[in-house]
Amino acid sequence: MKLTYFPIKALAEPIRFIFAYGNEEYIDDRIDREKWPEMKPNMPYGKLPILEIDGKVVSQSGAICRYFAKKHNLAGKDDWESLLIDVAVDAVDDLRAALANSHYDADEASKEKKHKVLVETTIPFYASRFDKQIKENSGYFVNGKLTWADLYFVALLDYLNVMARLDIVEKYPNLKALRDKVLALPAIKAWVAKRPVTEA
Amino acid sequence: MKLTYFPIKALAEPIRFIFAYGNEEYIDDRIDREKWPEMKPNMPYGKLPILEIDGKVVSQSGAICRYFAKKHNLAGKDDWESLLIDVAVDAVDDLRAALANSHYDADEASKEKKHKVLVETTIPFYASRFDKQIKENSGYFVNGKLTWADLYFVALLDYLNVMARLDIVEKYPNLKALRDKVLALPAIKAWVAKRPVTEA
Repeated sequence: MKLTYFPIKALAEPIRFIFAYGNEEYIDDRIDREKWPEMKPNMPYGKLPILEIDGKVVSQSGAICRYFAKKHNLAGKDDWESLLIDVAVDAVDDLRAALANSHYDADEASKEKKHKVLVETTIPFYASRFDKQIKENSGYFVNGKLTWADLYFVALLDYLNVMARLDIVEKYPNLKALRDKVLALPAIKAWVAKRPVTEA
Repeated sequence: MKLTYFPIKALAEPIRFIFAYGNEEYIDDRIDREKWPEMKPNMPYGKLPILEIDGKVVSQSGAICRYFAKKHNLAGKDDWESLLIDVAVDAVDDLRAALANSHYDADEASKEKKHKVLVETTIPFYASRFDKQIKENSGYFVNGKLTWADLYFVALLDYLNVMARLDIVEKYPNLKALRDKVLALPAIKAWVAKRPVTEA
């Protein structure tokens, strides 16, 4: 398999975490940004990451994560648990979208205005909800056990923090403990130790 | 079950389509917009739609759709087919997010600038990719058969068109045929005939 993305963590990192957890062999292809405009028209929906597998090309980080999460028993024991995991992942994505909406705003004044709302309202809202949810679920997003929702959130966290310009989990003990627990998993720890060092 | 949303189609309509297709009994709860600020803090992640089921409350339209799609054999015959369906749904969501980014922009000049990019680039890009994909998959998004990706797209279409200020499928024969085929399914036809008339 070959996973192609920009030379950062961001949207590819949840896939890389699940690959590390599941001990999947793959080529971690990180493209030069200047090559992207030429590549873009040939991507399934004009975006990265993409995964080449058995001669086929698929895109969409969340969908790829879910597929491999099933393979490695991280996607729930039944349809109801899978639903709860999907709900958590989608909520993390809502936070990500809110952060991206500010971070990628080309208008400086508008960007700063949005960032203020994020810091004062959006980030505390999501972080406190997640913190409460993890507390109520014995240290994980869903049903007191590790699922791909946990790996997804922790893998995205550096990217979310860069966009937020602050450490999202800092004031939230249950979120912080989840991060530390995921980063202490031997397979994740080994991956984090060997991956290229990038900010986002 | 009770499905709670604003008095429009938008993000609840894919769930309503799958409920119609699967002949699910539910209360189609449409709230007054003035009640929303008071309700918002009590929602799982501060958003609608929510579904109350067996005394539990879940949110996230896509996650709820996937859960019921599995129940009604619309979610793929194996994990690979489920992946392809998820990829299509996520691509539809990317188009939706791009449209929403313009539609909900409070700054009029910025909104119009974004809308121009949508009309000239983003909408034709996604519509032509979807059209090609449907052509190559014998009239459906995935593997020549009806899946929840088809219901999801067609259910969202009125909302997407309102945000786009044009008929997205108009110039794309395969997308148009998919829309007509889904709307001709007896269960969907019956639902569309009896649902409240709203623009988005």
